Amino acid sequence: MSTTESAGPHGYIHRKDDYLKRLRRIEGQARGLQRMVEDEKYCIDILTQVSAMTKALQSVALGLLEEHMSHCVVGAAAAGGPEAEQKLREASEAIARLVRS
Amino acid sequence: MSTTESAGPHGYIHRKDDYLKRLRRIEGQARGLQRMVEDEKYCIDILTQVSAMTKALQSVALGLLEEHMSHCVVGAAAAGGPEAEQKLREASEAIARLVRS
Amino acid sequence: MSTTESAGPHGYIHRKDDYLKRLRRIEGQARGLQRMVEDEKYCIDILTQVSAMTKALQSVALGLLEEHMSHCVVGAAAAGGPEAEQKLREASEAIARLVRS
Amino acid sequence: MSTTESAGPHGYIHRKDDYLKRLRRIEGQARGLQRMVEDEKYCIDILTQVSAMTKALQSVALGLLEEHMSHCVVGAAAAGGPEAEQKLREASEAIARLVRS
Repeated sequence: MSTTESAGPHGYIHRKDDYLKRLRRIEGQARGLQRMVEDEKYCIDILTQVSAMTKALQSVALGLLEEHMSHCVVGAAAAGGPEAEQKLREASEAIARLVRS
Repeated sequence: MSTTESAGPHGYIHRKDDYLKRLRRIEGQARGLQRMVEDEKYCIDILTQVSAMTKALQSVALGLLEEHMSHCVVGAAAAGGPEAEQKLREASEAIARLVRS
Repeated sequence: MSTTESAGPHGYIHRKDDYLKRLRRIEGQARGLQRMVEDEKYCIDILTQVSAMTKALQSVALGLLEEHMSHCVVGAAAAGGPEAEQKLREASEAIARLVRS
Repeated sequence: MSTTESAGPHGYIHRKDDYLKRLRRIEGQARGLQRMVEDEKYCIDILTQVSAMTKALQSVALGLLEEHMSHCVVGAAAAGGPEAEQKLREASEAIARLVRS
């Protein structure tokens, strides 16, 4: 079994390559924005790219959150106790940050 | 007068270096996220970084939008006619994309 | 000329009835949510309604903002001076609040 | 035990009165917005109120979501099986709608 297929401690490893690919694309978008500013492209076109990049980031966040809930949170919930409560609070706070950002 | 100080056609050039610096930092955040996923860092910590990066992007967008309005939109408005209307519609659509993303 | 057709000082009056209708519908959504909570409806269904209501509110805000820009901001811009700058700053701050809320 | 204190099937009943109070306040904000439009108040002031109302709605949504996760989702997770998966998917979809609205 290759490293990228093994189930890591934080549960999202089976889609690790997918996340890395998406984050590399987002990094590329950040470089593209620098070129646009450098070349003084039309402001509205730059803003359109910023919106696309923000959506791509949100999509990564929602994917990670879903995996986190289905692994860590559910695992802690099955075990019960204070750990379960803490995991839920942590997840809720992360969701609130996403909704408000 | 250096290139980065000249007033370009799209009005934001006098703060071009500032925008480039902020976008380079955002690019660095995208690389940092890749390292975190590569190292299988804790999901909640990754999400916290995604929220910070989203906020940094939004802040760039709001700055660009403000400069765009104070230069292009106001300039077109002073000139009047169909160009003014088109600039306003464009700006409104860009705002809507930001609010909804 | 009826009251609702006269051009008021803040420029959006010609669509006043439309805004009032949309806001009454939003008020109705707030009452509907109370009934759902009162009847202990399924949480996910309540959240779906909250998202719909948030979207309706955003849409009202974007409409008002567009009208504001095409009347007050452009008018002040044509006049120029410190008033123009203040109107632009005000509008930018309102946009930032919408993007971040 | 009064009705509002009993634990209902959807888990949030022990804070039902709190949610109802917040939703009534949100309904009042919707009526206040109608008065502001009716009286042609300054657009920026109306937008400030819309932002406050949106934040209040988001806060209700985040509270309901947290309760939903700590009751329904965790309960289903403990039971396991296809029900657990469905509850997680539902919750993830609701979160995505909140983040994107």
